[in-house]
Amino acid sequence: MSSTPTLDEVARTAGVSRSTASRAINGGSRVSPEAQQAVDDAVARLGYSPNRAARSLVTRRTDSIALVVPEPDERILNDPFLSGTLRGVNAALGASDLQLVLVMARPGDSSGRIARYLQSGHVDGAIVTSHHREDGLESALLDTRIPSVFVGRPFDDSDTLRYVDMDNVEGGRTAAQHLIDRGRTRIATVTGPLDMTAGVDRFTGWRSALEGAGLDAGRVEHADFTREGGAAAMRRLLDVAPDLDAVFVASDLMASGALRALREAGRDVPGDVAVVGYDDLGIAANAATPLTTIRNPVIELANLATHTVLALVADDTPPAQTSFPVELVVRESS
Amino acid sequence: MSSTPTLDEVARTAGVSRSTASRAINGGSRVSPEAQQAVDDAVARLGYSPNRAARSLVTRRTDSIALVVPEPDERILNDPFLSGTLRGVNAALGASDLQLVLVMARPGDSSGRIARYLQSGHVDGAIVTSHHREDGLESALLDTRIPSVFVGRPFDDSDTLRYVDMDNVEGGRTAAQHLIDRGRTRIATVTGPLDMTAGVDRFTGWRSALEGAGLDAGRVEHADFTREGGAAAMRRLLDVAPDLDAVFVASDLMASGALRALREAGRDVPGDVAVVGYDDLGIAANAATPLTTIRNPVIELANLATHTVLALVADDTPPAQTSFPVELVVRESS
Repeated sequence: MSSTPTLDEVARTAGVSRSTASRAINGGSRVSPEAQQAVDDAVARLGYSPNRAARSLVTRRTDSIALVVPEPDERILNDPFLSGTLRGVNAALGASDLQLVLVMARPGDSSGRIARYLQSGHVDGAIVTSHHREDGLESALLDTRIPSVFVGRPFDDSDTLRYVDMDNVEGGRTAAQHLIDRGRTRIATVTGPLDMTAGVDRFTGWRSALEGAGLDAGRVEHADFTREGGAAAMRRLLDVAPDLDAVFVASDLMASGALRALREAGRDVPGDVAVVGYDDLGIAANAATPLTTIRNPVIELANLATHTVLALVADDTPPAQTSFPVELVVRESS
Repeated sequence: MSSTPTLDEVARTAGVSRSTASRAINGGSRVSPEAQQAVDDAVARLGYSPNRAARSLVTRRTDSIALVVPEPDERILNDPFLSGTLRGVNAALGASDLQLVLVMARPGDSSGRIARYLQSGHVDGAIVTSHHREDGLESALLDTRIPSVFVGRPFDDSDTLRYVDMDNVEGGRTAAQHLIDRGRTRIATVTGPLDMTAGVDRFTGWRSALEGAGLDAGRVEHADFTREGGAAAMRRLLDVAPDLDAVFVASDLMASGALRALREAGRDVPGDVAVVGYDDLGIAANAATPLTTIRNPVIELANLATHTVLALVADDTPPAQTSFPVELVVRESS
């Protein structure tokens, strides 16, 4: 047995899922008495101490917090999502003495490096954004227990990972319903990556609106939240579903690429094809055809996440969760 | 006397400049015997230990290095200079186990926070880029002596701060000479910030070429390496020197703004006004009028800087300094 047992070992020993083990250890309510007993036994047997890392921090503050962007590509720098997040974090840090360090992946990164960095005690807290299912950050943050907040819902549903987010399902649903209300019937979508909850949730919302209206929800291509990816996915859609009369593209950056692909294919926007994007962080308003979109309150989300981390680092009560209403912004593209 | 004497105190006690004190302590050759003796006495009297911080690192590696970008504005994220730098750093880090942390200023930052962070021992080394005269990083890095390399020449000329750079004076001279060779005689410039050596040096090169050709070097406006700043400076130039027939703009990002200002003023490029930019990192080739420019080997510079820091961290011999030839890339704008 290794000297520092992890949550994974506790779960395996107890014969329960990682989520259940986490909920049991953190006093969550959705745990059966049998599972709670098994986890308690495993914790005792292994000598698991979820607070060991947290305790060591008490003795040595680093006066820095990390903004973690687990993207392996410097293209993320050109995404207004990141500048919006930075603006929100900086606004919340204000005149505090905390130094922000931006932690990015690099091409070909093994998933473990960022996790090790966060576990090494060099930051007091972490804000995670642009998170992917397989990047290892959820388990790393469950293990380290340094104060952390995800901007964007994580996949783990054990209620032990804090996050701030808008309702992306409702956002996707609103975008699709707008196209339905415009009389469109052959409505496609370019989704974001399905290893990100924002990609999954916007897709889910789009599909539920179409199915609710009795429309075919089969015109789907997946992309990666980049302009080039959006353009390529739009070209594939025009190949496989040339009859489409509308498309919901799950980010404005991808939608600006889709606009270019539509123009190159000779399709008029919105005459032939109506387009709705997602984010409204500057790209939508300045697109060749200004984009109808769903507003993503990125700055407010990052600001709330930062205030939450600051409160946790200071052992104060974190601010209440805020509900962000879904807002459709109608422009020329639909 | 404070418990930890600094290089400033040594210099003050010895009655010499900070640069001289630094050279004397580091065994530099350009120190008079009298100054060397005064500094040695001050070091002994104060108990100054330049290696204290470095020694503490030996006992505890952090396995992370910092890329320091002391810019207070998230606009830097949209500058291809930063993505080029990141690409170069990441290429050099390769499969190493070091985590890169990006350390940026934030709006309204006091200059001391980043310096304190670098002095706190949370990184093994630092690469500094986009450095300004008053950001306090030169003295901070002289004091901490963690391995560090500037991408872009620092102002300190004591030879104790390592840096990699291209010859920006020769770059500015080459740009201006090209415009002279094209037969232009009323050649303006939009400089970069004069609290950055790249801004000063490109301006110096432009002026020396004009003066060498007996041309007026008075058509000058200063800007901040942003697109908006370049556009505003170009408008001011057209106000104060409406007869200009060429302009050297000290970055392509600013030059793309200048192109817009010229178009809005009804000036044809290159017919009425020839334009030369600086960097060739993608913006120049893709500008509305593709830009003649000077190639800035940012990726290579960042790569060399990183290999140098890695060698210093590992106590290996750093790679030899490389000389980067100045390369003019001619396109439609001139």
